[in-house]
Amino acid sequence: MRKILLTVAYDGTNYKGYQKQLNPYKDTIESRLEKALQKLFKDPNLSCMGASRTDKGVHALGQRVVFDVESTIPAHKIPLAVLGLLPDDIVIVSAEDVPLDFHPRYHATKKTYEYCVINQKFKNPLERLYGTFIYGEFDIDKMNEAAKKFVGRKDFKAFCTDGGELEDTMREIYECFVVREGKRIVISVTGNGFLYHMVRTIAGNLIAVGQGKISVERIDEIFESGDRQQAWSTAEARGLVLKKIYYDDFDDIS
Amino acid sequence: MRKILLTVAYDGTNYKGYQKQLNPYKDTIESRLEKALQKLFKDPNLSCMGASRTDKGVHALGQRVVFDVESTIPAHKIPLAVLGLLPDDIVIVSAEDVPLDFHPRYHATKKTYEYCVINQKFKNPLERLYGTFIYGEFDIDKMNEAAKKFVGRKDFKAFCTDGGELEDTMREIYECFVVREGKRIVISVTGNGFLYHMVRTIAGNLIAVGQGKISVERIDEIFESGDRQQAWSTAEARGLVLKKIYYDDFDDIS
Repeated sequence: MRKILLTVAYDGTNYKGYQKQLNPYKDTIESRLEKALQKLFKDPNLSCMGASRTDKGVHALGQRVVFDVESTIPAHKIPLAVLGLLPDDIVIVSAEDVPLDFHPRYHATKKTYEYCVINQKFKNPLERLYGTFIYGEFDIDKMNEAAKKFVGRKDFKAFCTDGGELEDTMREIYECFVVREGKRIVISVTGNGFLYHMVRTIAGNLIAVGQGKISVERIDEIFESGDRQQAWSTAEARGLVLKKIYYDDFDDIS
Repeated sequence: MRKILLTVAYDGTNYKGYQKQLNPYKDTIESRLEKALQKLFKDPNLSCMGASRTDKGVHALGQRVVFDVESTIPAHKIPLAVLGLLPDDIVIVSAEDVPLDFHPRYHATKKTYEYCVINQKFKNPLERLYGTFIYGEFDIDKMNEAAKKFVGRKDFKAFCTDGGELEDTMREIYECFVVREGKRIVISVTGNGFLYHMVRTIAGNLIAVGQGKISVERIDEIFESGDRQQAWSTAEARGLVLKKIYYDDFDDIS
């Protein structure tokens, strides 16, 4: 038996999120990946496990997915071999062998997400799927001041959506910053893990700071309240991209 | 009666081209526009006429469309008024009153199209709808040498697809050039009008020159032959954008 780790890129527009659902009619990235790999390896029981459960409409350039398989095919040949079995909005970027006890979630040391605001009035139909259009003035310096307040080990209870399960809401953010690239405003967040809707809620609040709707200091108050109702709204899914998942304890994995 | 000129942007991915077809089940940009405007103006006979018949999968940022209507609504209010009646891949950028004898095709003095090659191996799913992925070396200088050979009044019989109608294949190209913007290679073509598949065939041949598959001089030979079989293949639709249509004889129209 071998364990293979895939790096996967996808356009989340047409899917009900990454993770396979009980309802087999819900089209997800994972169900598409599994079907393609089951066909390639002629193994109807092949099962995938992803590192991040990205939501409906969220994109990825660096999702990680593992599966176990009996096969002698060299790992680096898998991306090309599976190409014709996947729709063109899901691409396997690379594949590598990992130890059998490797776990894509538990062994991940950090993850980077990027959120994109397109700061223009014209809702360009050629850009609509990969950003959220917001017109008007943005104060990027203020956004960066506020972004610093998310860095560190904190209770993000007020910056997530309760997914139904009571759980530990402490998370550590290593880096959070905002850059303007022409008309695009990109919010980058790197942390050890994220709660449900956490990145999009951070993005929504940074956008509100940038627009002057809330003050930089308001972020502290929301943290202190621990109350989701105090925070600004969650930014829409289409602007979010899972950029990279890091496995720093494994030298071979880039 | 008034005549309104629209500037329209769209993502052509999900449509069978711009023009309305006899088969009402063929979803086109024009059929969507007409339905939305008929609803807005409560006129089931309202009929649109576009300046360019862009193909299935081709995009536009500057398509022009006219329609006649009895209404007192100020033209500049139409884009916002129609917003909720159109899917988000079709956007009316602007609207203005034009003289009743204005014709979107006959009065157009020139049109600019851009073709985009994404020069990388990774078929990024977030870019796949708006360019064609071609990996390997490109000689942009040679492409520009070849591009100059398309400029002028010429017989483009060898650089189009015979749409079934025998017609005058003389057209004038005012400008044709190639620029590299990072990994993107953009081919820009401005002319007084274009035959069926003409821009995509010019693009396909410039790509072949850039890759060293044919020489710069080969373009002259293909022109002389007047034979489509001599030319290189047509570039795929997704890389093409109708950028702008000019009405130089009308001072008011930008």
